[in-house]
Amino acid sequence: MKAVAVESVKACSVNPIDVKVRAKVYDDFPDYYNYVPGDDYQILGYDGAGVVEAVGDDVKDFKSGDEVYYAGSPIRHGSNAELQLVDSLSIARKPTNLSFVQTACLPLTWITAYEALVERMQVKVGEQAAVLIINGAGGVGSVASQIARHVLKLPVVITTTSRQETTDFSKQMGATHTVNHREIPAQIVKLDLAVPLKYIFLTHSTANYLPVATKVCAPFGKICSIVQTKDFPQYGTEMMAKSITFVWELLGTKPWYKTDVESHGKMLEELRQLVEKGVVKCHHTQTFPLTAKGLRDAHEMVESGGSIGKNGLSVDDPAAHGQAFA
Amino acid sequence: MKAVAVESVKACSVNPIDVKVRAKVYDDFPDYYNYVPGDDYQILGYDGAGVVEAVGDDVKDFKSGDEVYYAGSPIRHGSNAELQLVDSLSIARKPTNLSFVQTACLPLTWITAYEALVERMQVKVGEQAAVLIINGAGGVGSVASQIARHVLKLPVVITTTSRQETTDFSKQMGATHTVNHREIPAQIVKLDLAVPLKYIFLTHSTANYLPVATKVCAPFGKICSIVQTKDFPQYGTEMMAKSITFVWELLGTKPWYKTDVESHGKMLEELRQLVEKGVVKCHHTQTFPLTAKGLRDAHEMVESGGSIGKNGLSVDDPAAHGQAFA
Repeated sequence: MKAVAVESVKACSVNPIDVKVRAKVYDDFPDYYNYVPGDDYQILGYDGAGVVEAVGDDVKDFKSGDEVYYAGSPIRHGSNAELQLVDSLSIARKPTNLSFVQTACLPLTWITAYEALVERMQVKVGEQAAVLIINGAGGVGSVASQIARHVLKLPVVITTTSRQETTDFSKQMGATHTVNHREIPAQIVKLDLAVPLKYIFLTHSTANYLPVATKVCAPFGKICSIVQTKDFPQYGTEMMAKSITFVWELLGTKPWYKTDVESHGKMLEELRQLVEKGVVKCHHTQTFPLTAKGLRDAHEMVESGGSIGKNGLSVDDPAAHGQAFA
Repeated sequence: MKAVAVESVKACSVNPIDVKVRAKVYDDFPDYYNYVPGDDYQILGYDGAGVVEAVGDDVKDFKSGDEVYYAGSPIRHGSNAELQLVDSLSIARKPTNLSFVQTACLPLTWITAYEALVERMQVKVGEQAAVLIINGAGGVGSVASQIARHVLKLPVVITTTSRQETTDFSKQMGATHTVNHREIPAQIVKLDLAVPLKYIFLTHSTANYLPVATKVCAPFGKICSIVQTKDFPQYGTEMMAKSITFVWELLGTKPWYKTDVESHGKMLEELRQLVEKGVVKCHHTQTFPLTAKGLRDAHEMVESGGSIGKNGLSVDDPAAHGQAFA
């Protein structure tokens, strides 16, 4: 049985998906959110980092005592717990130069952004094209910017931001240009880009941003979203006129359909190396204690919409961790 | 100036797009349909076949007297005329083993289906995957089936049909399996396919078929449509759950945005060779006279929805052409 038990989860993080699953925000979401086969409840939490307690007989790559991290799975219990069972194919060793709480902030956002850019939109390394990332200072937006700039080496990575603080953060995270989220078409025209804007990644409010995305997208461009919406308007958009591709990215598709789950472990192993080499920075900004109260506070923070980067939770004293970005 | 004048259009065909442009069916279609820069009217007609009368100074590939065919362009006047000006990059020599009217039935459907399968969904030659084509006996559906089976060599090409006549025709056109359009999920489950159903091509009623397409589509599959719809329902579909790609195919995108127009000429040249080798069959089924009355009759036939394959119009005596498929 390809599973590995993690002794004492050392840290986790809270993502918008945690809040949505807890609050059952999705009116008509795939059944598998909040669904662990055989149980009538689900322990919340996706991202986690901890120490391996024991491994299944078939597991060769990990052993008791290894420090690991993972994005979790919608069909297993989550990381808001002392012990957690995870699929060994979906985990990797923790970067040595990050704390547990910093590490726990990375996997779900990284895998989501990586799948969106590399697998769904199939952006090529060194492609002479621009990408626009909606909500550059958000959790997924800030790792997507780094993947676009430092892994895929795109010449132009535009993000949307709203105030000086988020603009500064997004530029640290890889944005070559930022535009105000309310003035996207006009400000992008002003940039007078030398390469076509072929890729647009919606990490926030699909319904609001889809029409404007079709306006600025190049013909035959691709738009990817991770935020559910009830329907897509087509009239009044240029989706058909430009033969645009729209694609959903959902981290849960692989674990639910049992397809290529090992790619999650591989992506996190690649991420470990990139972090250790200093190519990728952690977007952790704030630490809460990993307690019932800390989880409530972190959920409230995410629900407020004002977060920059990622909020982590740690079993250790939060004061000992500081901030990844001061 | 890269243009070539065609002396006396010898034949044309009527496609659903001709009917929609004439009847202004599209409530909110791209401005460029029915739009010839500088003129306040547009001569109807896309597909055409005829003889070159004269060429522009820059044109090297064609000369007066050449027999050619083409899909036309939304920003030029159409083929329902005696003389027509076309872009030399978008034309090719007529297959020697087809009549003008048979030839004129091919280009718009072929380019649309080719762009949909090869460029938009990026199906690979010999891929171990299945494709589902909605409306297998239609103009685009019947060439798409041939591209999928004989050019891309997919092992499984499923089409939807409704009656014995359309089922027989679709099988002649490359379908390896047919299913009734009202019983798609159940009949596809029964096929017990050995390869994943990764590609779905909607050539009819996007609004009706999108939800059922998401049910039968494999995770990470792709759905392409050529039929405009006001909006896409997302709730109640499995588009997000399966991280499905949706992409529009519109032949007019290249000529309107002046992008890669020469690909249309190249596709038709490849098609000429495939037709002459007998790999691809013409889907022409019926001939009308190329007169005002003949055009009205052909438009009525297409509007009725009962067409099989393609209806062509010829300046010669229709009785002399017979049917490509008896």
